[in-house]
Amino acid sequence: MKIGRIYGVGLGPGAQDLMSVRADRLIRGTRHIAYFRKKGRTGHARSIVDGMLAAATVELPMEYPVTTEIPFSDPRYNALLAEFYEASVRRLVEIAESGEDVVVLCEGDPFFYGSFMHLYTRLNGRVPVSVVPGITGMSAAWTATGQPVTWGDDVMTVLMGTLPEADLADRIARTDALVIMKIGRNLNKVRRALEHAGRTGEAWLIEYAAMAEERVVPFTEVGDIAPYFSILLIHGNGRRP
Amino acid sequence: MKIGRIYGVGLGPGAQDLMSVRADRLIRGTRHIAYFRKKGRTGHARSIVDGMLAAATVELPMEYPVTTEIPFSDPRYNALLAEFYEASVRRLVEIAESGEDVVVLCEGDPFFYGSFMHLYTRLNGRVPVSVVPGITGMSAAWTATGQPVTWGDDVMTVLMGTLPEADLADRIARTDALVIMKIGRNLNKVRRALEHAGRTGEAWLIEYAAMAEERVVPFTEVGDIAPYFSILLIHGNGRRP
Repeated sequence: MKIGRIYGVGLGPGAQDLMSVRADRLIRGTRHIAYFRKKGRTGHARSIVDGMLAAATVELPMEYPVTTEIPFSDPRYNALLAEFYEASVRRLVEIAESGEDVVVLCEGDPFFYGSFMHLYTRLNGRVPVSVVPGITGMSAAWTATGQPVTWGDDVMTVLMGTLPEADLADRIARTDALVIMKIGRNLNKVRRALEHAGRTGEAWLIEYAAMAEERVVPFTEVGDIAPYFSILLIHGNGRRP
Repeated sequence: MKIGRIYGVGLGPGAQDLMSVRADRLIRGTRHIAYFRKKGRTGHARSIVDGMLAAATVELPMEYPVTTEIPFSDPRYNALLAEFYEASVRRLVEIAESGEDVVVLCEGDPFFYGSFMHLYTRLNGRVPVSVVPGITGMSAAWTATGQPVTWGDDVMTVLMGTLPEADLADRIARTDALVIMKIGRNLNKVRRALEHAGRTGEAWLIEYAAMAEERVVPFTEVGDIAPYFSILLIHGNGRRP
């Protein structure tokens, strides 16, 4: 009997026409589509593919049992999420074992800080899995600034705003080009780290890169709140003819 | 009179169906297409779009006056390239001023260590320019390994093999996830830097990611030669439920 395949499909940064031709074909052609979302929401991944699904497509929303209600340092956070991923994988495997493929929607690039990884490591070896890379949110962010992010032999560092302040400051001071993601509730910590590294004046905040609300703001003009879809950027300044 | 627009279009890592839907439409619809290549070669960017161009498309190959014949530390290297970029820009501006758009093909993502940047900074302000981001070669590389590159709050560092050995070793030792590009003739220097940092056993070499010849090799099994399209990767190993 034929076993179905699970496709982890990178959607790119959010504009429908910035997904790859391969992703576009898989999404329009699939019978089963799965995606993460917060309970009671449409889900950002699902909203990106609005209007692309065939009428007969069966949807499988995978609803997080917890997002920010418990800090991720709490052991219950990991336990709840692990259980949730296991349950999601059981449903995906069931569909694959019935002989059908499933497309799992992944914002950005599935293997780059993506949630699909938590399914992938549990699916791998049980059913066939393929991953389709996508344009990252950070690519959309530097494109939005209208300036290349790296030149020549610039060093680029990618950091999460969840890191401790001292680590952030040290890393920010020691790189040419910089990307910081997960800014949201870490905004003021990131601000202090930038100041400590003496690089506030070089930084940009890109909100909703490649989406309708896209906005590029010099970091010195950023207030006390940054939306969830925010990326901080410092451009490299390397060798160029 | 209408002025044309120059589009710097990211082609992604090399598979035709990994370019974005936006890139695909622009390339199939354009009357003028420009791309870099080495003299006497088809050019990699041009070969990616094989079979996509309309019959009436006018091609503008931009042929590098020099690639590896002069070291880039030689002042003549910079002078020759600057002159070449200026001449290329003059031709692009002429076409735009005649009222026609031009699509410039860019491997990977135009603003991420791309050659288009050298045109972009010279075009910007003279004629309208739009940049379409693309899937990076490094995304294709980590996808090829079948393992996520970053988890939780992993730090990711991107380095060029052209950096001095001591810098490479220091940076390699201090990161979670690692990408090194421009390996080719820097292979043995990179090997020594990896050994110095004690991380040889964690490294993978991905040759021709997303292309027909794609190959993933543990770095310990890499010989004395790496193809031009090679990316070195160390996966992060961060927090995960």
